[in-house]
Amino acid sequence: MKWENIDQQVCSVARALSIVGERWTLLIIRDAFKGTRRFEGFHKNLGVTRHRLTERLTMLVESGVLTKVPYRTNPERFEYRLTRMGLGLYPVLMSLSHWGDQWLADENGPPMTYWHSRCASGCDPQLACSGCGEPLRPEEVSAKLGNELSEYVAHLERQGLAVPSDAELPRQAGEYRLAQNKKE
Amino acid sequence: MKWENIDQQVCSVARALSIVGERWTLLIIRDAFKGTRRFEGFHKNLGVTRHRLTERLTMLVESGVLTKVPYRTNPERFEYRLTRMGLGLYPVLMSLSHWGDQWLADENGPPMTYWHSRCASGCDPQLACSGCGEPLRPEEVSAKLGNELSEYVAHLERQGLAVPSDAELPRQAGEYRLAQNKKE
Repeated sequence: MKWENIDQQVCSVARALSIVGERWTLLIIRDAFKGTRRFEGFHKNLGVTRHRLTERLTMLVESGVLTKVPYRTNPERFEYRLTRMGLGLYPVLMSLSHWGDQWLADENGPPMTYWHSRCASGCDPQLACSGCGEPLRPEEVSAKLGNELSEYVAHLERQGLAVPSDAELPRQAGEYRLAQNKKE
Repeated sequence: MKWENIDQQVCSVARALSIVGERWTLLIIRDAFKGTRRFEGFHKNLGVTRHRLTERLTMLVESGVLTKVPYRTNPERFEYRLTRMGLGLYPVLMSLSHWGDQWLADENGPPMTYWHSRCASGCDPQLACSGCGEPLRPEEVSAKLGNELSEYVAHLERQGLAVPSDAELPRQAGEYRLAQNKKE
């Protein structure tokens, strides 16, 4: 499976990375959260080439993360704003930022600190359970196969075929679906 | 600023992406969380080329995300395990996964669902405030400049220079530091 096809994996991490997993993309979104809206602004902040930036912005608009809004006519000019889907990436950015603070800060400490207006105190972002609100630790979370993966496993079992490990399933189930779609 | 230098930005998101922002890297880490440990296992699951996989694993070991542990002698063979730094990426993966579930699932629903043993119920990962435990919303969080960025802004003000926007600061402060280090 090539990188270009990872959106075909039956896995939400792979699907998410098919949109935000290219170089620069999450930095563009970081800047959008900081208020950058115009092509020239992104270009100036990031120092990415104009060609690459155009490519990334186009992809983010096509996939629904950003929307293009005209801000001037004659000549028409557009700015880029985060959609609800784009705003949904806030936890991804904050988790990356927190990991960077914890593991990659130098003697100057974290580049930014955060203040939560709701409780009026400094805060770190924390991954919590939507049910009980407690911090989510990997050893306390188990994953269950959703519909498509369960059906694929049942199909393998009916055929008397070996069932792959959880780590192998996303790609194999995706390839199976691609093959089925081609047949139809 | 080239992609290869984004770790020089005074920004934890950029620093984190300098380690995990390449194609395949977060999928390798996803598989490590699912229990994959050996080169052949990663190769089989992902379908990435051996050359690229070697490159990524070497980088993850060098940066401290994975550690190489011998599991056989004569010939010596190694497996790759997540370090504490690597385990710290759990919130990043879960946030990507949750975003994918919300925005990229098809008619089959989410590929996986999660069960939290601590509260014995199904769960979604949620970004919460470490102080009050409430969900963190971007509009309720404000960022404050840390030491290095504050000092850079003070330096600009002393020189009577324009202070860039928050979105421009990370790169400019990084370039300033690079220039200072060269002088020394």
